[in-house]
Amino acid sequence: MPTSDNDPPPVYREIAEELRAAITSGRLSDGDRVPGENDLMKRYGVARATARQALSVLINEGIVVPIRGSGVYVRAFRPLRRHGPKRLSRDLWGGGRAIWQADAGDRPFETDSVVVDEVPAQPHVARALDLPERTPVLRRRRRYRLDERPMQLATSYLPRELVHGTPITEVDTGPGGIYARLAELGHAPAHFTEEIRVRMPTPGEIEALSLSAGTPVLDVLRTALTDDRLAVELNEMTLDGSAYVLQYDFEA
Amino acid sequence: MPTSDNDPPPVYREIAEELRAAITSGRLSDGDRVPGENDLMKRYGVARATARQALSVLINEGIVVPIRGSGVYVRAFRPLRRHGPKRLSRDLWGGGRAIWQADAGDRPFETDSVVVDEVPAQPHVARALDLPERTPVLRRRRRYRLDERPMQLATSYLPRELVHGTPITEVDTGPGGIYARLAELGHAPAHFTEEIRVRMPTPGEIEALSLSAGTPVLDVLRTALTDDRLAVELNEMTLDGSAYVLQYDFEA
Repeated sequence: MPTSDNDPPPVYREIAEELRAAITSGRLSDGDRVPGENDLMKRYGVARATARQALSVLINEGIVVPIRGSGVYVRAFRPLRRHGPKRLSRDLWGGGRAIWQADAGDRPFETDSVVVDEVPAQPHVARALDLPERTPVLRRRRRYRLDERPMQLATSYLPRELVHGTPITEVDTGPGGIYARLAELGHAPAHFTEEIRVRMPTPGEIEALSLSAGTPVLDVLRTALTDDRLAVELNEMTLDGSAYVLQYDFEA
Repeated sequence: MPTSDNDPPPVYREIAEELRAAITSGRLSDGDRVPGENDLMKRYGVARATARQALSVLINEGIVVPIRGSGVYVRAFRPLRRHGPKRLSRDLWGGGRAIWQADAGDRPFETDSVVVDEVPAQPHVARALDLPERTPVLRRRRRYRLDERPMQLATSYLPRELVHGTPITEVDTGPGGIYARLAELGHAPAHFTEEIRVRMPTPGEIEALSLSAGTPVLDVLRTALTDDRLAVELNEMTLDGSAYVLQYDFEA
């Protein structure tokens, strides 16, 4: 891999590199306290500013987390495996299970702050659902929590005409959720497209997902289409990037 | 969406929010100069520290980029669409085209710093390739550039026994690349699994990918299996998170 070929790296980087090696090798593991500024000053004979700089490299990478008034800790990382194709298989929601249950396994999860309303379709929503701009769409916003920890924000848009007066407009959509209800209406999702982008969170997202410093988010944009290619849902999800591994399987 | 329900946000956040709205609405677009500290101080009647804090919110989110001695600019975002299933279809590499060409379209791309060597399989490589730990594997490291810009670092591991003495051990593997050569050896990839994680880059990656402040990276880990489920390649990729949209299509 291309590396810089000239000067030796500055001291703070070497210290950061040693701490990183201790973490990736497992000598320091999930939740362990990382040596603090004073420890580093003593161990390496460096100034406080250098010790601080070394720690902030790792904080910015998100592999350690500062806890105010306590110290810096290795991030406890027990990511959710989100298996794209498997979790959306018809067997699952057809069988009355929540899609989210596929990710969470036996860990306790819940949906909170569900807000359902109707809004005019913004341009990107209209495009995804193949509707004229500003056509009324049903919007469902919610947050998912696992082991009490907020993991994901999601906003679904569905054509109002399709879902008006159905349980899809209720806070609780019943067993199997939106997709099971769409199937009952004769519009079962058959094809999915997911688009993934990554970025740093907005201040509002940092709050809503309780993100620690140096944690990026994943934007997952899913479109659900029926067998005859009618777009029935656009779902905009924002995932805590430290909490997820996304998996997709496909054929050559 | 859950939002804070108590105090009004601090002034620097409101300013950041207005600038963000100007960018997402398109009033400020790719490559435009964002108002600087002096402009913000004058426009909002705030102290320099507040103006600076507002700008740093957007810099940390990665939607604007500071250019030393010049100002702060809206990040020119023309991401590559990396279509998981399509780009790895047999038609493509079977037809002698580079997989990368599927992403790049007509834009000029190149592979640089190709390094090929043999190493003992580390635990995660051994696990993915279903080999005993420390079995010799061929390692291919390279960097991909598009329009001169580094976009991706990739390291492939293949069982040495399978590829020893074949063009796969050469710097230039020929038309259709590794997968076309594996097919000729009777080991055509048929199934792929991709795992996606997101994190902040290491200092070495910031250098190798010329990343600007506040840019996360995507780790994509791909395993290629033959029809009879023999693992023939593990590819560890690190992508500039600001440069990619990943797309996956699948069925319910």
